[in-house]
Amino acid sequence: MCGMPEGFRFSCPIRVRYSEIDRQGIVYNSRYLEYVDVALTEYFRALGVPYQEMLARHGFDPSLVKATLEFKGPARLDEDLRVYGRITSIGRTSFSMEFRIVREAGGDLVTGAEIVYVNFDTATQSSRPVPEEIRRRIEAFERTAFPAAR
Amino acid sequence: MCGMPEGFRFSCPIRVRYSEIDRQGIVYNSRYLEYVDVALTEYFRALGVPYQEMLARHGFDPSLVKATLEFKGPARLDEDLRVYGRITSIGRTSFSMEFRIVREAGGDLVTGAEIVYVNFDTATQSSRPVPEEIRRRIEAFERTAFPAAR
Amino acid sequence: MCGMPEGFRFSCPIRVRYSEIDRQGIVYNSRYLEYVDVALTEYFRALGVPYQEMLARHGFDPSLVKATLEFKGPARLDEDLRVYGRITSIGRTSFSMEFRIVREAGGDLVTGAEIVYVNFDTATQSSRPVPEEIRRRIEAFERTAFPAAR
Amino acid sequence: MCGMPEGFRFSCPIRVRYSEIDRQGIVYNSRYLEYVDVALTEYFRALGVPYQEMLARHGFDPSLVKATLEFKGPARLDEDLRVYGRITSIGRTSFSMEFRIVREAGGDLVTGAEIVYVNFDTATQSSRPVPEEIRRRIEAFERTAFPAAR
Repeated sequence: MCGMPEGFRFSCPIRVRYSEIDRQGIVYNSRYLEYVDVALTEYFRALGVPYQEMLARHGFDPSLVKATLEFKGPARLDEDLRVYGRITSIGRTSFSMEFRIVREAGGDLVTGAEIVYVNFDTATQSSRPVPEEIRRRIEAFERTAFPAAR
Repeated sequence: MCGMPEGFRFSCPIRVRYSEIDRQGIVYNSRYLEYVDVALTEYFRALGVPYQEMLARHGFDPSLVKATLEFKGPARLDEDLRVYGRITSIGRTSFSMEFRIVREAGGDLVTGAEIVYVNFDTATQSSRPVPEEIRRRIEAFERTAFPAAR
Repeated sequence: MCGMPEGFRFSCPIRVRYSEIDRQGIVYNSRYLEYVDVALTEYFRALGVPYQEMLARHGFDPSLVKATLEFKGPARLDEDLRVYGRITSIGRTSFSMEFRIVREAGGDLVTGAEIVYVNFDTATQSSRPVPEEIRRRIEAFERTAFPAAR
Repeated sequence: MCGMPEGFRFSCPIRVRYSEIDRQGIVYNSRYLEYVDVALTEYFRALGVPYQEMLARHGFDPSLVKATLEFKGPARLDEDLRVYGRITSIGRTSFSMEFRIVREAGGDLVTGAEIVYVNFDTATQSSRPVPEEIRRRIEAFERTAFPAAR
């Protein structure tokens, strides 16, 4: 692994666990959404916002609205993967991320994912704005000024 | 619950388990792909093809190529859900299914899913044709003549 | 399946899911604890206490203190299992259950489990007494007067 | 974290994932068996035997026979844990391991586990001897001459 795919500034490693493998000896499909959540947590840690602070201090609790997964190749038991992640757009209450899960050795794409999140308020069961400080940290990290939210 | 949504001829029940609930007290996102696999297995059982026969007798081993999930509402601990499923197209080596996961009480949509499967051969690590008998059973069950595979 | 093993008055069915199978084609070890939790929920439903009422109305939230699992035979994809469960003792804040997970066809033991639960209060992070009404319902169901709690 | 608990020569880190948390905001009970399997894999890697070689080269496929888990304290979302592991005995076809899952910060015990494994042959569905080379590597690593197997 050397160098990020173009447009990505974040990645984190994942090693495939025995509990994640199915009858075919490869990572079971739903586990990739679990990997995506690991990467989401690590992404915001990289921005200086550990998960506990996301909730308690920022009132930021990303919940999935839509997920599109493309399964390109199998990942095997004990294989070292790398998850690249980037935020591709920010709306008023939602944001979108692209993830690429690749083999650490060789860099082949295993699974690609596009996820739309909304900032969900469990107490009121409704969406709420993406906090300004979170937006600023994302723009600084991604070195992008996202178009003004509608 | 009485009556199928239009276009669906299959459904099966799912009761939400404790192990499937997350910190927000609702079904964790990846579990819906596990529910989809329950429905896939039950769908083919309804067509007279239990999972063990799919593999051993028919050489039919559906693997996910693409999954699109839309999360419309939360499902709670011990809630009774119903998963509707139907096959919407069949290609030479692949087929597509639509799933709607709804509340048994009321019928509200919880999660919708569109899945593209390929008939994968683990031994050769490549795709192979959808078996003719499987295609015939699907067409009889869905009461649809799918366009000839490319 | 006809007749309960001696001493058991409760059972519930489980059909093995694709997502629960490991590389060896058999149920992965940790899934049995998930099956145990399904049986716990169904046990209390059989006593007239659905899970949501356990928490909201009775202040009863069983948490695992100790689990002993014996793996006696493999369970396979799509196999029909049956989980027998019974409460074997009740203390002041804790109770013990025995589970036997068997094949529906034949009745062979797949996995046995002994679990000690405590009634845990998440708010105070401490144990609290097993509610009197819960104790009475258990004794009526099991047709046993458990020795007075210490 | 500084220094091993007495008798342990191996440990590995685990960071709690969102997908592993339950309704109470703490690690769900069955996930600890998944952590144990992560530690098992890393233990044998530390002995110079990556998982793929365990199976393909050594004919060594540890399967759980018995598991005893004691839940001592809750682990929270994104918390850094450490799993200590050691082999406590080796029989002809089986061996036993002790695991201690502790908080990285402070070292408090979260969950303790004792597991008995058998070297299982999936093809013949029966146990087979622990390979001599595996036994030698374990004894060298643990700096212990285990009593001769019965």
